[in-house]
Amino acid sequence: MLKATIEADIFRETIDAVSALVNECRLHVTESGIRTITVDTSNVAMVSLELEAGAFTTYAAEPAELGLDIEKIRSMMGMIGKSDIVALELDDSGKKLKISFGGYEYSITLLDTKTIRKDPNAPNLELPATFEISGAMFNDSIKAAAMVSDKISLSVNPDTKVFTLNAEGDSDRIKRELVGDDVHYITCAAARSLFSLDYLKDMGKSIGRADKVQIRLGNDHPVQFSFVYADGKGKIGYLLAPRIEAD
Amino acid sequence: MLKATIEADIFRETIDAVSALVNECRLHVTESGIRTITVDTSNVAMVSLELEAGAFTTYAAEPAELGLDIEKIRSMMGMIGKSDIVALELDDSGKKLKISFGGYEYSITLLDTKTIRKDPNAPNLELPATFEISGAMFNDSIKAAAMVSDKISLSVNPDTKVFTLNAEGDSDRIKRELVGDDVHYITCAAARSLFSLDYLKDMGKSIGRADKVQIRLGNDHPVQFSFVYADGKGKIGYLLAPRIEAD
Amino acid sequence: MLKATIEADIFRETIDAVSALVNECRLHVTESGIRTITVDTSNVAMVSLELEAGAFTTYAAEPAELGLDIEKIRSMMGMIGKSDIVALELDDSGKKLKISFGGYEYSITLLDTKTIRKDPNAPNLELPATFEISGAMFNDSIKAAAMVSDKISLSVNPDTKVFTLNAEGDSDRIKRELVGDDVHYITCAAARSLFSLDYLKDMGKSIGRADKVQIRLGNDHPVQFSFVYADGKGKIGYLLAPRIEAD
Repeated sequence: MLKATIEADIFRETIDAVSALVNECRLHVTESGIRTITVDTSNVAMVSLELEAGAFTTYAAEPAELGLDIEKIRSMMGMIGKSDIVALELDDSGKKLKISFGGYEYSITLLDTKTIRKDPNAPNLELPATFEISGAMFNDSIKAAAMVSDKISLSVNPDTKVFTLNAEGDSDRIKRELVGDDVHYITCAAARSLFSLDYLKDMGKSIGRADKVQIRLGNDHPVQFSFVYADGKGKIGYLLAPRIEAD
Repeated sequence: MLKATIEADIFRETIDAVSALVNECRLHVTESGIRTITVDTSNVAMVSLELEAGAFTTYAAEPAELGLDIEKIRSMMGMIGKSDIVALELDDSGKKLKISFGGYEYSITLLDTKTIRKDPNAPNLELPATFEISGAMFNDSIKAAAMVSDKISLSVNPDTKVFTLNAEGDSDRIKRELVGDDVHYITCAAARSLFSLDYLKDMGKSIGRADKVQIRLGNDHPVQFSFVYADGKGKIGYLLAPRIEAD
Repeated sequence: MLKATIEADIFRETIDAVSALVNECRLHVTESGIRTITVDTSNVAMVSLELEAGAFTTYAAEPAELGLDIEKIRSMMGMIGKSDIVALELDDSGKKLKISFGGYEYSITLLDTKTIRKDPNAPNLELPATFEISGAMFNDSIKAAAMVSDKISLSVNPDTKVFTLNAEGDSDRIKRELVGDDVHYITCAAARSLFSLDYLKDMGKSIGRADKVQIRLGNDHPVQFSFVYADGKGKIGYLLAPRIEAD
């Protein structure tokens, strides 16, 4: 059972965060909120999302697992007004989700959860450097990097306390160094890994809306991004595997 | 003979209404105004338009039939400023139409009216339900429906007085119900027909600008849309054949 | 050696003016400013540009020739903020140009100037008509003309003092006549030449930003456009060969 209402903005951010990586997902519904964790088809990136019941305008639910065609829902998003309240309701058969907004009733058939791959286990990673930067600054840097290359190195220099984003193309390079007020270290340690910009661009759109994104970085290790939304009642995490350096 | 001036907005709405369905048309010019009636190439939709002499800023004409390449004129529309006055003048040979605006003189060769199919007769249809709704509400609903399907059913329930637009896709559905202040019935009777969204999307852009559109609906019958523009001095009508239900 | 800073707007206009015609150019740097002159790959159009040292916010340079990949620099332009100050610095090896703005450091490998064709000589042309019109008016006319044709005739009638832009399509034509306050003659003489709109559209974007463009026109001869930017401290010139009339 699920019967809830939510502000359009929070709904949109929820869908966008997940649709950045996957077309479908398994949504876990409980009395205390919703959550999902899923990896992209090539097993390179993972997204996890939690949204507390308190983030909804109204919320009533019993435990359930819903197979969502995220891509179809995202394509309807343009019809939802900025200040609309979106109503979600699982129909009695449990096979359709009704999404109502601004006079429209959108009904979508749920996917069989058996056809969706099992939830991945979030890996336990030792990542020496942990720090926070502005989400917009991160996203802008990713967009600039993508102009010259398809990969970017992220690195922390513990001596200078500089966080560097560096993308090298065939004949050009774009670099951004964040230091001082632009980067807040929780643990400042040497770290450097190379990542595919394709994935970072997709994640960047979601990250770009966050005031602050926490980044955990290692040496030739995955990178973790985490940030809150919905007034702190929602939590989004991305994990991205590194690229092999020599190419 | 034709020598007239018209506000850019009214000119644009005239061209857009016709170009939604056809690339060329036969324009009847008389002392009292202009009119056209034409069907699309697949004989599924009809548009009729009348614009009184009084809708023009200045107007002088003798009866004539002009073959217009509507599509070419529409493609020039982007050059016309919002507050321009557009001057129309048939040249002496009667073979070219001069359209002047904001310093430009655009001259277009008229089509031989013999090559344009004869004016269709507007069919006399018995359509039980007649009602008015907001043009913007209609267009928004059509755009939403087109996200999930290529066809839509329009129906009136005389018991609940609800006008329903319902589009079914393979695994999802979008529905909008208008009732109360959102729909004004002239005659409220049971009616339901299915239509192609391709045509409705094209008509919707024109209808969407109208304050009110009158809809006449039957059972597996064509639907009629009619609305006024140019301060009531212009009249546009669309007729659309139904789609076969079973598919 | 080159170490300079420049307002984003002036930098953008400089790059745009050259990239309208070519993908790469040879930039001459001297103590008193920068300049380039280059023809497009099909030898139909030429662009020349000069920017005085005084147009830069700061400027220090020793004579050098830089091979610039203009197209790559142009593609980065979207990342530069409207009110950014752009810093240019040739690195010590003289093989890379560092372009810094708003926290980014963009480094581009210079092209070997030996691989770039020699500077063309600006031809000495006798062009009877010389006059000035608004850059925006010129660009708008070019855009309108491109809707109906791929070529345009420019002509001056010394009797009526009208400057005419006339584009003929298969069945339509667009014409604009400038006279009176819209055209200021330095020498008003009979002139008429036909030009490819492809080139004029590219030049038009740059010309469109100029308050006034000076046009020099002959009979089946090239046309010259020249205008200033950067508060008069920059000068841009275009030269375009005529098209053969009969087609």
